[in-house]
Amino acid sequence: MNAIFVESGKVALRVVEKPAPAAGEVIIAVRFAGICSTDLEIIKGYGGYSGIIGHEFVGTVVEGSRALNGKRVVAEINCVCGKCDMCLGGLSTHCRRRTVLGISGRPGAFAEFVCLPERNCIEVPASVSDEEAVFAEPLAAAIQVTRQVKLDARASVAVLGTGRLGLLVAQVLANTPCKLTAIGRNPATLGLLDRKRIRNMNIREVNQWGDYDVVVECTGSPEGLPLAAKLVRPKGAIVLKTTCADRGPLDLTDIVVNEVTLIGSRCGPMHDALAMLAAKKVDVAGMVHRTFPLADADKALALAAEPGTLKILLKVD
Amino acid sequence: MNAIFVESGKVALRVVEKPAPAAGEVIIAVRFAGICSTDLEIIKGYGGYSGIIGHEFVGTVVEGSRALNGKRVVAEINCVCGKCDMCLGGLSTHCRRRTVLGISGRPGAFAEFVCLPERNCIEVPASVSDEEAVFAEPLAAAIQVTRQVKLDARASVAVLGTGRLGLLVAQVLANTPCKLTAIGRNPATLGLLDRKRIRNMNIREVNQWGDYDVVVECTGSPEGLPLAAKLVRPKGAIVLKTTCADRGPLDLTDIVVNEVTLIGSRCGPMHDALAMLAAKKVDVAGMVHRTFPLADADKALALAAEPGTLKILLKVD
Repeated sequence: MNAIFVESGKVALRVVEKPAPAAGEVIIAVRFAGICSTDLEIIKGYGGYSGIIGHEFVGTVVEGSRALNGKRVVAEINCVCGKCDMCLGGLSTHCRRRTVLGISGRPGAFAEFVCLPERNCIEVPASVSDEEAVFAEPLAAAIQVTRQVKLDARASVAVLGTGRLGLLVAQVLANTPCKLTAIGRNPATLGLLDRKRIRNMNIREVNQWGDYDVVVECTGSPEGLPLAAKLVRPKGAIVLKTTCADRGPLDLTDIVVNEVTLIGSRCGPMHDALAMLAAKKVDVAGMVHRTFPLADADKALALAAEPGTLKILLKVD
Repeated sequence: MNAIFVESGKVALRVVEKPAPAAGEVIIAVRFAGICSTDLEIIKGYGGYSGIIGHEFVGTVVEGSRALNGKRVVAEINCVCGKCDMCLGGLSTHCRRRTVLGISGRPGAFAEFVCLPERNCIEVPASVSDEEAVFAEPLAAAIQVTRQVKLDARASVAVLGTGRLGLLVAQVLANTPCKLTAIGRNPATLGLLDRKRIRNMNIREVNQWGDYDVVVECTGSPEGLPLAAKLVRPKGAIVLKTTCADRGPLDLTDIVVNEVTLIGSRCGPMHDALAMLAAKKVDVAGMVHRTFPLADADKALALAAEPGTLKILLKVD
């Protein structure tokens, strides 16, 4: 099969063996995959991963499950042991022995076929299109924020960064009662938020420093956290979504002096993401920048790395 | 009067005017002052402060209060407006218009006399000696940790760093039901902990990585936080006490991927600190490394900056 390999910072289309499922695993024919900033960071060296990349996808189960064969699915990307202290403690996304699709120890979804445990797969409702379902994984990561901080009607919340992830977080938070402002620098994405009637602001217009109860840092850039630390009020919280392969010197003085709580945030609940998509509570179709065939993944990844590019999809089947 | 001035990284004994109290302020004759790592960071440029340094002290009120005249006091170091959103919200140590003794906008306590609002002063019980009372401010900062994280009998907690602050935090936490381990690298301070029957470990002996529910980072060094991030379990918490003038490149990937909560921690409750000292729940006398006269502050500061030095006091009166 065709697959997109990353090794020592190089990306290449390779022809590899179709993967063989382990016990309890299914084979999924990938239909669409999405490019995430984490993929771009992996190419730069983040996490030291080499192999097939890609973890956002929708596909059809072709082998390994009577219940799911022929069904369209998305999947939880963390493959877990079920036996370690984290799994037993209800924190299985932090499983001590986990592999993570296209990120750690497990070939990813920028490929014709992918193997995953059957229990990781979730059937996609008919009302959710392929191009919507492929957003389930990053949408789940956006929903995770709502599990980590209080977002009641008294909370003033800034989503910092209006790129691929920031737009999802802003849309998710627009479904909570909090007082939301999305802050970015790209007029095009700020315009998107306008059309969704989500309050937004160019970073150059910010005059309310040190005043947000919660800042969700989604910039994907090393400059994001220092900026978030200036936006948040004393004793407020920053939810940190950005992972960078390289990060410059970082002054945490503001965090200590202002007794800010910084909360790392990663994967979220896939079921909730699919439910939000089915209920049309977020609009992801407007976030698709362009779709490339798998064979053009190099061009797709290059475009995804350009500032201001929203979601790039790979059409696989 | 004599006072220790810091300006552009230089420390000098100067003869300056005795300070004049503003409305509501008292004049305090300083008896002892303590050297804190923050003082050493200020000399290196932290916070851009120039003026008289010093914020740990015990003294005698000599003017400005009928109730307190002649009394021994320690004092809350944050001088606040009482009117801003933080003050009105019960977070007055984060007052938007605060001055901070010897740290920000207010001459400090390495001087014969110091002015502070009367309401900041707390009388020292007769059972607490001068050499104990001078620890009230850093002890309060240690107690602050107990206000920020859950320290019940199920919590495994590492105090990382066994210097001036780490030893106080370890002693405070030894009064809670948590499962405590102090981790340091200095055999002398680890020996002190042994004698206090506080479980401790040389950092070289640590074999339990990614397993502490809470890590309190008290190293005072830029290397502390990355180490804390390796010690804490996924979804655990790091309480960050260290403020450094300079901090190298910092990789927050572990914080994000493991969804760790990082909590900045600064000043704490002075009344509680005095109460702990009065109840002899912590031993601070054993932490005094050496006492210098105010005139020898340069030598005192140089010694305090050497690794492994515990508390250096300045005798002022």
